[in-house]
Amino acid sequence: MSRTIVFDVNETLLDLNALNPHFERIFGDVALKTAWFKQVLQTALVMTVLGEYTDFGSVGGIALDMTALRQGVTLSDDDRAAIRDTMLNLPPHPEVPEALTRLKNAGFRLAALTNSAQQAAETQLTNAGLAPLFEHKMSVEAVRRFKPAAEVYNMAAEALGEAPSNLRMVAAHDWDVAGAMHAGWRGAFVARPGMVIAPQAEHPDIIGSDMTEVVNKILVVDV
Amino acid sequence: MSRTIVFDVNETLLDLNALNPHFERIFGDVALKTAWFKQVLQTALVMTVLGEYTDFGSVGGIALDMTALRQGVTLSDDDRAAIRDTMLNLPPHPEVPEALTRLKNAGFRLAALTNSAQQAAETQLTNAGLAPLFEHKMSVEAVRRFKPAAEVYNMAAEALGEAPSNLRMVAAHDWDVAGAMHAGWRGAFVARPGMVIAPQAEHPDIIGSDMTEVVNKILVVDV
Repeated sequence: MSRTIVFDVNETLLDLNALNPHFERIFGDVALKTAWFKQVLQTALVMTVLGEYTDFGSVGGIALDMTALRQGVTLSDDDRAAIRDTMLNLPPHPEVPEALTRLKNAGFRLAALTNSAQQAAETQLTNAGLAPLFEHKMSVEAVRRFKPAAEVYNMAAEALGEAPSNLRMVAAHDWDVAGAMHAGWRGAFVARPGMVIAPQAEHPDIIGSDMTEVVNKILVVDV
Repeated sequence: MSRTIVFDVNETLLDLNALNPHFERIFGDVALKTAWFKQVLQTALVMTVLGEYTDFGSVGGIALDMTALRQGVTLSDDDRAAIRDTMLNLPPHPEVPEALTRLKNAGFRLAALTNSAQQAAETQLTNAGLAPLFEHKMSVEAVRRFKPAAEVYNMAAEALGEAPSNLRMVAAHDWDVAGAMHAGWRGAFVARPGMVIAPQAEHPDIIGSDMTEVVNKILVVDV
């Protein structure tokens, strides 16, 4: 039973497709949005392996410059600002507000735990209209290591005052769910389009195709 | 001055394009080869952050299954075997044998340091005709953490009996060069097509577009 549910933010709650018009305009190919975000994640993982840290927004800028170098595209300051500003103004996936409200109304504690920096996370959740739903908004900035490093989940468990086994991490990234489960949490995977878990990996006990399906299962399993 | 030069293997010495016909046949899209190898690297990085390890060949299989899941493709055992066998039989990039031979003939010690497992690395280098060039063939298997973890470079420096500052890591991956430099080595980046270093990152003192250019620079800098 997990009465405190912790949500990843980017891609899990918020829809990165709002960036598509900018990638279309800058690179002439919306597929570069996906390539860019994969580079963001790779850069964050490499920093964590090397014991380095810079805020996730800066990692986004680094990955954008690498994507531009690969494509032979010269970025303007306006291009960079457009991506940065849009990342702070992402809409929620359509089913998210209703699903989270239902969970909160059922008496669950809701928290956010994100690779975004603290101030950026608060801005993102406020702009998406989700901020009032969360009792805690937590950032990896507190430990200066990105998910899925164990320090992140341990910090969050301590901040929430809960044993790891009472916590459930909800994410659209297999590595985030794996990191939480590795730290003794339960997991829930939101299998959004293109998101998969390796068949060989330990699967969380909750998998749904969107947040509605995940919340429906939480309301059965974690009552 | 670095008189011992350590080479990454996959993509740096060996040409993954030999896999293209298989990805074309299995997925109908050769671009999935690149997506697959990015997933290989992400899975290896995540394992290293989580303190887990399995051999790189198995990581390749996991990433292949994830790629197939994403594409809605069912893999046969023959498909899996074709990718695995081709990974063990990759040809060197065309300029590599001559460039490395020139470096060895100039009196340099040459070593390989790869994410591939020990036996796989030896098979790969033998099949590519490069094995006799290397005094040491080293695998991350010895420390069960993937590059760019510091343990890998420290293990290699000890095996080579050299101070880190006497070693130079040559790789087509920015994160491998960064890991080596982080451990006190010099670096050299092979800027093969699609391979870039973040503009903001510390750059190694040697960058070349292929192995010929990199070796030419080593022969000037490290004499």
